[in-house]
Amino acid sequence: MAGMGKVYLIGAGPGAADLITVRGARLLAQADVVLYDALVTPEMLELCSQATLISVGKRSGQRSTAQEAINRLLVDCASEYRLVVRLKGGDPMLFGRADEELRALESEGIEVEIVPGITTAVAAAAVTKAPLTRRGVARSVAFFTSSTAPDQPEHPALPHTDTLIQYMGGREAAATAERLLARGRSADTPVVVVENCSRHDERIERLTLTDLARGLGTAHGPVLVMIGEALRLREHQTRGRQSSAAGALPTRG
Amino acid sequence: MAGMGKVYLIGAGPGAADLITVRGARLLAQADVVLYDALVTPEMLELCSQATLISVGKRSGQRSTAQEAINRLLVDCASEYRLVVRLKGGDPMLFGRADEELRALESEGIEVEIVPGITTAVAAAAVTKAPLTRRGVARSVAFFTSSTAPDQPEHPALPHTDTLIQYMGGREAAATAERLLARGRSADTPVVVVENCSRHDERIERLTLTDLARGLGTAHGPVLVMIGEALRLREHQTRGRQSSAAGALPTRG
Repeated sequence: MAGMGKVYLIGAGPGAADLITVRGARLLAQADVVLYDALVTPEMLELCSQATLISVGKRSGQRSTAQEAINRLLVDCASEYRLVVRLKGGDPMLFGRADEELRALESEGIEVEIVPGITTAVAAAAVTKAPLTRRGVARSVAFFTSSTAPDQPEHPALPHTDTLIQYMGGREAAATAERLLARGRSADTPVVVVENCSRHDERIERLTLTDLARGLGTAHGPVLVMIGEALRLREHQTRGRQSSAAGALPTRG
Repeated sequence: MAGMGKVYLIGAGPGAADLITVRGARLLAQADVVLYDALVTPEMLELCSQATLISVGKRSGQRSTAQEAINRLLVDCASEYRLVVRLKGGDPMLFGRADEELRALESEGIEVEIVPGITTAVAAAAVTKAPLTRRGVARSVAFFTSSTAPDQPEHPALPHTDTLIQYMGGREAAATAERLLARGRSADTPVVVVENCSRHDERIERLTLTDLARGLGTAHGPVLVMIGEALRLREHQTRGRQSSAAGALPTRG
């Protein structure tokens, strides 16, 4: 629409400021206004300190009215600013409710572009060095979540893939484990639970499917739950995590 | 191991040089040697023009001996160079055979770190503005591929997720479509086929599940095939793709 700004839906990635894409970082540095989620870290916001910053923080369990308010705010920002960034944790197109924001913007004729982000599962695979697929072992992986839509059953159909990644898994991850055991998955199938991936307070736990069914690893709140044979520790792999996100780069010279 | 270099397995993302992570780009600029895939673009290699560049290009259908040669080369490079980068298209932990390289390096006690990359499906979702999940419509997505392992059946168990993404889909994508139709998926289920995502020769086709079963969209070679109701065009969405990867950034000032 003439006179309207352009909106960029940008995936921030898992949290570490250097795990955003180069394209995303450049756009952040040029943004006039940035609307950001609760999942976006303070260090990420330092990349757009020139911009007007608007927190539209919401965690899982949010009401749809909150989403509608964000949609309206995005449209309003596009009429006031030239370069509008909507910054979302992870990737906008995977559990990011981008669809609803795209509809709101498109119905007003506002130009939108999407910049992908590192989704948490892929970042967690990197940190734990646990591949999501493995030749001859796992050639399918599903990302799924329990529903937050009021008209849907709480437990979705459980994917029949080799590797399973439950986003925002909490207490319901134990039910997932029970159902997989009932399906005949081995009791010692490796499970990796990751909380606050790539952040300073990152927590990683390695357990088994039996442990998960007993509720271990998921007591403290929303976590990423990864399940599958591909995740099994290799013979010479060390159990610990690699160097912290902040320490990942070698010092120059 | 004392005196050995450190190896970084880095995801290059789908191809555009600015869709690598900031961390990946910084490491490329510091690399002493870079071993890169056929999927890595020339513009990406400009980020590491100071490094010794070694092409270990292979496309789908590669022999495992080729992988073993790459494994040996990685170990050799770690004994000669300080900062070794293994640059892979997409993400190393999703269909990237990282597992085999990790085993080879770990068995020699070589330090390894993994930097995640934008996997093609997520980049394709951004370019086509087609979300992989949608509240109330799709809360699970599977990434899968046909096997290249000689001892496995060609057709994997087809995931029962709302959205299905077949990597390196070619002729076998028609079989996928037939099986989904037989399962009762609607004939007009949206399908998006993406070739060379984010590159100058990118090709995007929108079709239906019936079209895909007839072999449309997949005749020319390996493509990404996305299937599911979440991908349906929205009321005000334009059919064309957004501005090209090269034109994604607004000009400054």
